[in-house]
Amino acid sequence: MPDRIDINCDMGESFGAYKLGRDQEVMDYISSANIACGWHAGDPMVMEQTVRLAKEKGVAVGAHAGYPDLMGFGRRRMELSLNEIENYILYQMGALYAFAKTHGLPLQHVKAHGALGNLAFVDLEASKAIARAALRFSKDIILVAYSGTVMVQAAKEIGVWFVEEVYADRVYNPDGTLQSRRIAGSVIHDSEKAARQALTSVKEGYVVAHDGTKVKVKSESLCVHGDTPTALSILQKIREEFRKASIAVKPMGQ
Amino acid sequence: MPDRIDINCDMGESFGAYKLGRDQEVMDYISSANIACGWHAGDPMVMEQTVRLAKEKGVAVGAHAGYPDLMGFGRRRMELSLNEIENYILYQMGALYAFAKTHGLPLQHVKAHGALGNLAFVDLEASKAIARAALRFSKDIILVAYSGTVMVQAAKEIGVWFVEEVYADRVYNPDGTLQSRRIAGSVIHDSEKAARQALTSVKEGYVVAHDGTKVKVKSESLCVHGDTPTALSILQKIREEFRKASIAVKPMGQ
Amino acid sequence: MPDRIDINCDMGESFGAYKLGRDQEVMDYISSANIACGWHAGDPMVMEQTVRLAKEKGVAVGAHAGYPDLMGFGRRRMELSLNEIENYILYQMGALYAFAKTHGLPLQHVKAHGALGNLAFVDLEASKAIARAALRFSKDIILVAYSGTVMVQAAKEIGVWFVEEVYADRVYNPDGTLQSRRIAGSVIHDSEKAARQALTSVKEGYVVAHDGTKVKVKSESLCVHGDTPTALSILQKIREEFRKASIAVKPMGQ
Amino acid sequence: MPDRIDINCDMGESFGAYKLGRDQEVMDYISSANIACGWHAGDPMVMEQTVRLAKEKGVAVGAHAGYPDLMGFGRRRMELSLNEIENYILYQMGALYAFAKTHGLPLQHVKAHGALGNLAFVDLEASKAIARAALRFSKDIILVAYSGTVMVQAAKEIGVWFVEEVYADRVYNPDGTLQSRRIAGSVIHDSEKAARQALTSVKEGYVVAHDGTKVKVKSESLCVHGDTPTALSILQKIREEFRKASIAVKPMGQ
Repeated sequence: MPDRIDINCDMGESFGAYKLGRDQEVMDYISSANIACGWHAGDPMVMEQTVRLAKEKGVAVGAHAGYPDLMGFGRRRMELSLNEIENYILYQMGALYAFAKTHGLPLQHVKAHGALGNLAFVDLEASKAIARAALRFSKDIILVAYSGTVMVQAAKEIGVWFVEEVYADRVYNPDGTLQSRRIAGSVIHDSEKAARQALTSVKEGYVVAHDGTKVKVKSESLCVHGDTPTALSILQKIREEFRKASIAVKPMGQ
Repeated sequence: MPDRIDINCDMGESFGAYKLGRDQEVMDYISSANIACGWHAGDPMVMEQTVRLAKEKGVAVGAHAGYPDLMGFGRRRMELSLNEIENYILYQMGALYAFAKTHGLPLQHVKAHGALGNLAFVDLEASKAIARAALRFSKDIILVAYSGTVMVQAAKEIGVWFVEEVYADRVYNPDGTLQSRRIAGSVIHDSEKAARQALTSVKEGYVVAHDGTKVKVKSESLCVHGDTPTALSILQKIREEFRKASIAVKPMGQ
Repeated sequence: MPDRIDINCDMGESFGAYKLGRDQEVMDYISSANIACGWHAGDPMVMEQTVRLAKEKGVAVGAHAGYPDLMGFGRRRMELSLNEIENYILYQMGALYAFAKTHGLPLQHVKAHGALGNLAFVDLEASKAIARAALRFSKDIILVAYSGTVMVQAAKEIGVWFVEEVYADRVYNPDGTLQSRRIAGSVIHDSEKAARQALTSVKEGYVVAHDGTKVKVKSESLCVHGDTPTALSILQKIREEFRKASIAVKPMGQ
Repeated sequence: MPDRIDINCDMGESFGAYKLGRDQEVMDYISSANIACGWHAGDPMVMEQTVRLAKEKGVAVGAHAGYPDLMGFGRRRMELSLNEIENYILYQMGALYAFAKTHGLPLQHVKAHGALGNLAFVDLEASKAIARAALRFSKDIILVAYSGTVMVQAAKEIGVWFVEEVYADRVYNPDGTLQSRRIAGSVIHDSEKAARQALTSVKEGYVVAHDGTKVKVKSESLCVHGDTPTALSILQKIREEFRKASIAVKPMGQ
């Protein structure tokens, strides 16, 4: 049984006058922050503040890279070429790197946001484009790959450092994909349930799908969404359970 | 008399389907490329291509950072806070850094574009914000400071590495500022005249203003605009004159 | 003494996933909605919803036109040409007109937002550019002109239909300008005080500046900010006072 | 045999400092201009100039509405909801309407640009969303529907006024779709060939696909691309052939 786990969460999704999320509070419970880079959310002022906050809290930072679609929050698939995906990711990694560097932090990881992430779950070539961007930037960057998908295969083929990720607060399908957000109840708001899914994934190596199927996963980093109303209680419960189980919460890159 | 000079030129100003400039040809004659970073011009695909081209031609690359105003090509003053200026510059430097790094090039320099550059010429605090961005990113980044302006003072106060820059193809005012583009004839199209201004600035340390005044300058990097119709003949003439004068053309950072 | 007044408020300032303001509640207390048009805030989905809501509530709609600066929420001055101001306003009016028309509402008015509004307060030529945009679109469009400023003069010179506007919840300077938001206390949160300022402006034709000076105003439309925490109680109090004073609240265009 | 035809062409695709197309020359040969509305191309200054030019030349104007993707020139499919498509189109129609109105021109038509157009060719629901936008704006707006596709069916179901369109300078597949631009030779540069395809479509009611198949079409408006190198000679040749055949070229709305 692993004795450590990373908890990652989307951060820095405000933009200009628009505030989103509860970064200040959530940052206390996570070990890795996926920070928006100004394309689907975030702007340089927000990035600066979010990286500074992460540093204060001892949280590692990574680029949460998305489509160039602020109006759609990066949640609408765009038909990009593989070259576009690769270079768009690279751009966003570089932009965040500047803020990480000025605060003395490494750029720990990169994760695809929203519809780009959903594409990567199922599209090997898109996943490879993302992995190439990561590897081109640095061999020290970790690609966050959704456990059990082609992202893992892509990461291996490209030879990028990667960790496998499991969602604590999302309902799984029997095939290991996430149940669509459009289906009611696909986001888990019950902190007990989310904490159980988190713990089981780490200790037992599986999650229980909505029909009872045990889906095998490798849980190296747990994703919790910071924007659900119960995010804080979920995070607190997860931290409590891990403490009891003597599983340390540490940034994926350590 | 200096035995070396840098020639810098704005590059990578295309955007999506829109083509601007003659990068392919101009790159043969310059030693430093100021590459647009997607805010006033440029996009990740263009940045990738421009950095690759620069590498092929042995040209050093720097971030040409501007206002977030693609519609105005960064040529319209925006009332940003000093913090905004600093973080916006940092963002753009990071974005370009990613492409430089993947091609094995250092990010050599940063230069403010358009109306932000014009602001920096006359506003010490804005210049210091730009200088801070450069220094925060790395002590190895060179700030391109317009010779004889508060940018030089700002660079010294902040303690950033800088070079002083002179324009080869612009008419000077007696006070050392550039004659406004709105005045006819303020851009020099005559290659002989531009080359003479370039050479005199390097060899003699002055430029001749429109009224005959000799304006003292320190010419460490010469700026030539790539988008004027005679840019290539100006560049060729300048290179020829420097060759005759045994002044080597080398990237500012070497 | 006038027996009627308009109350206008900024509406539709959400953007994509970003929510701003309490439009649903505020709309119950106003007669004219200044709707953002997608440049400094708002998007077509938000515009559609806001116009529909206005129609349901019997509120007239107008274009709240601003700078092309979503990142700055239109609050940062941009150095546009007069032609640019005119055409940018026209564009935004047209965009909102489409939604008004499909809901069977006229485009009642146009108002400059944020830094563009602040510019118009003090810059006759900018005010005239805005007035020209209004008149070019239709002689039936009302320009909302801040009482006592060059906007009124501009409206008269251009010959556009206009109404004069007074702020209910902002502290006035003795010269009739608004005290800067940067000075603490410049936004009035006390509903009694705001209602008194509103009522006095309508009944007596003046507002009391921060030093006690009576500033003469013509109060045809009252602006109340929907995003202050006490906006609803201010609006309720104002409506109550007007009811007592038998002053009807009606859209400026009726 | 019809005695009249419309010729439409994409216009106003410049943006800020970026120039695209040869509007000034092309406008002499067409009867309807599809004007970009600031989303995939164009800006308010360009829209103003393009509408003015169209008026001078006696050309009718319509909205060329596209995805919110300037970086991709609207040529990349985005997964929008039907509601988003409808409201995005409406927004762009309104924006152009403002410029048409101030020049005393009606907004004659609307046409979907790029990847949105390609979607509409094959997706009935998307076509209906576009048709709804047109009808909501005004029953006097003409929807340009690609002949033989679901766009025609959508237009009929929604009850919007429409005309069927044929491409003069594109190679057809036997099933009536256009051969992909990715296949070499899919854009016709030969003016004789394009003129013949144009004339045959009007006089005979068919076009000849690349394999010789006669594809039945209803040719009420001919589309010619203004950005091909031979656009002017194609347009001249088409006009010459129509003159000989006594087929008048008139805006689709007349």
